Amino acid sequence: MTEEHLQELRAAPRTVISVDAMGGDRGPAAVVAGIALSAAKNPDIRFILHGQRDELEKLVARRKPLRGRVEIRHADGVVTMDAKPSHVMRHGQDTSMWSAIDSVRHGEATVAVSCGNTGALMLLSIMRLRKLPGVNRPAIACLWPSRNPGGFNVMLDVGADVRADERDLLQYALMGTSYARNGLGLDRPRVGLLNVGTEENKGRAELKAAHDLIEAAAEEANYSFVGFVEGGDIPSSKVDVIVTDGFTGNVALKTGEGTAKLLGDFMREAFTATPLSKVAALLAYTSLRRLKKRMDPRRANGGVFLGLNGTVVKSHGSSDATGVSAAVKLAFELAQSGFTERLAARVAASNATGPEALRELAGGRKG
Amino acid sequence: MTEEHLQELRAAPRTVISVDAMGGDRGPAAVVAGIALSAAKNPDIRFILHGQRDELEKLVARRKPLRGRVEIRHADGVVTMDAKPSHVMRHGQDTSMWSAIDSVRHGEATVAVSCGNTGALMLLSIMRLRKLPGVNRPAIACLWPSRNPGGFNVMLDVGADVRADERDLLQYALMGTSYARNGLGLDRPRVGLLNVGTEENKGRAELKAAHDLIEAAAEEANYSFVGFVEGGDIPSSKVDVIVTDGFTGNVALKTGEGTAKLLGDFMREAFTATPLSKVAALLAYTSLRRLKKRMDPRRANGGVFLGLNGTVVKSHGSSDATGVSAAVKLAFELAQSGFTERLAARVAASNATGPEALRELAGGRKG
Repeated sequence: MTEEHLQELRAAPRTVISVDAMGGDRGPAAVVAGIALSAAKNPDIRFILHGQRDELEKLVARRKPLRGRVEIRHADGVVTMDAKPSHVMRHGQDTSMWSAIDSVRHGEATVAVSCGNTGALMLLSIMRLRKLPGVNRPAIACLWPSRNPGGFNVMLDVGADVRADERDLLQYALMGTSYARNGLGLDRPRVGLLNVGTEENKGRAELKAAHDLIEAAAEEANYSFVGFVEGGDIPSSKVDVIVTDGFTGNVALKTGEGTAKLLGDFMREAFTATPLSKVAALLAYTSLRRLKKRMDPRRANGGVFLGLNGTVVKSHGSSDATGVSAAVKLAFELAQSGFTERLAARVAASNATGPEALRELAGGRKG
Repeated sequence: MTEEHLQELRAAPRTVISVDAMGGDRGPAAVVAGIALSAAKNPDIRFILHGQRDELEKLVARRKPLRGRVEIRHADGVVTMDAKPSHVMRHGQDTSMWSAIDSVRHGEATVAVSCGNTGALMLLSIMRLRKLPGVNRPAIACLWPSRNPGGFNVMLDVGADVRADERDLLQYALMGTSYARNGLGLDRPRVGLLNVGTEENKGRAELKAAHDLIEAAAEEANYSFVGFVEGGDIPSSKVDVIVTDGFTGNVALKTGEGTAKLLGDFMREAFTATPLSKVAALLAYTSLRRLKKRMDPRRANGGVFLGLNGTVVKSHGSSDATGVSAAVKLAFELAQSGFTERLAARVAASNATGPEALRELAGGRKG
């Protein structure tokens, strides 16, 4: 490391991530273990940790990498996995989830991370952070393992809202582009619209309208539009950002995860089936470990809520330390890139042209 | 084999499958190779093969297992993959696809198999075979590799129609149950309705209505209803039949196939990465071959069109001999079980209670 680099590092402001310690299936121990992993790897990160103070103080004290880098905010309440989002919205002021979001609202942290109830987290995020001007429906974006050089594609919406009209889908394209630029470092992301390939009967009416809107906005928003893509293209190298409604996106995400898990189990069975195959597993140890890592859904952990005044990362409910650490890493990268501000600027710019202008553009259909 | 068994075999009527030889991406050579594979394994099968007579005669003559078991029907035209279904419907009388379906229409064959254009095949099948009385939208059902003892679950619709209302979804449940009973040998299949798990905001309105309809019909139609399932449950052992609309089902199917392909490629790379991993691959040869077979999407080849007066199996457009043979095997099993007749009886029975009765049942909502 050069002297210059060291100076830069010292000068850089530390990035603060707000973490809800209580919401996940595995409780605060897994969350604290996860942020400790991140802290050990990344000297430039600090945390505000929300939850039961006594419990958290004990857990944090045991982790050396966390020394002097965690501020604990006491919160009595916990949002359970089966809590009704609307109930949490009205009565959840004392919960760790509410508190974690408010740290972003008050500018103390750049990004919030939670393993809790998705519906409640989305509703609280909308209520406390507010939607960006011009955004109708916020979306959840996920990273999908792919054949692209970066190893991931972006897909959205994967579950914020079960419906989306053509205008929402256009906004998803803009937000997804911004995410791909900041999260994956792509200058001019390629955007595809998810559809089915039944020839003449191709898809639903709103998808045809969305196709034209997204195509018309490509030049100005600096992405390239590859048109309709199918389910098989989600992990492909012909697209970087896959746009769809939250119902279809959620089904696709869970189907992909389920398929990966099934095949992982099949593979494990294959390598424990016979003594010979066990020897083979030993011989191929390094390759198999690398393969396991490539197939590990925890690596792609972290759904990002887009379209709000502030960024929230939803970690999987069953996240262990590795999963939490992956979500924190994603939160850190988005915080460093100034993602929230850039996304806001992008959406504002696209709105500056006005709905009329967009309708005009869409009117000039290119076939 | 006992003498009794041999007598049974001799007495059994041979089952005739009608095969469109021309529609697939790999042309008639792959189709003929596929039916030859099936013929070699199964002495009880015969074929009517539709397409260019000269070409087919040469291909068939080269395959010993096909001797005396194939009748060729000349057809000049071919339905191409990019043909418009509506055009084929009006002008496709001379095509091999039309001819293959008509063999079922005229009772010469029990099931038709084609690798051709899905949209055209569906439209021609509806036009030539007609829908079963009481069926509004026919559906395409696929077999999905699963953790169940039989190795497969049934999912429908995977692409016949991009929309389905609650009544269509109920019919899919009935047809899927019938398919699981005849294709997978299950007495009382467990049916699940595909949805997303965003707590309060769970799914779309028509899904709640479909939930109640399918629940109310379970007793009479002899299936058990497990309620809503998510994408991750499609390959699980908690359900046998997954019901969804053709848009969602098609996206899920292709997403699952794409994920399996990606992971298969990752695995191949892992076992050719180093000399040591290549040795390991040799040692684990038997296990890996079994694993490859379990992961092979060609084994689950064959979407079945349900809801018509006759059964049509759609083989993947890019099917090779193994894929075609799997589709033929499925066609044979459905033909043997008297599937078409049983399905017709089931739908008729469910209609006998009348739409009013069903509405009544649905009215008695059980929460």
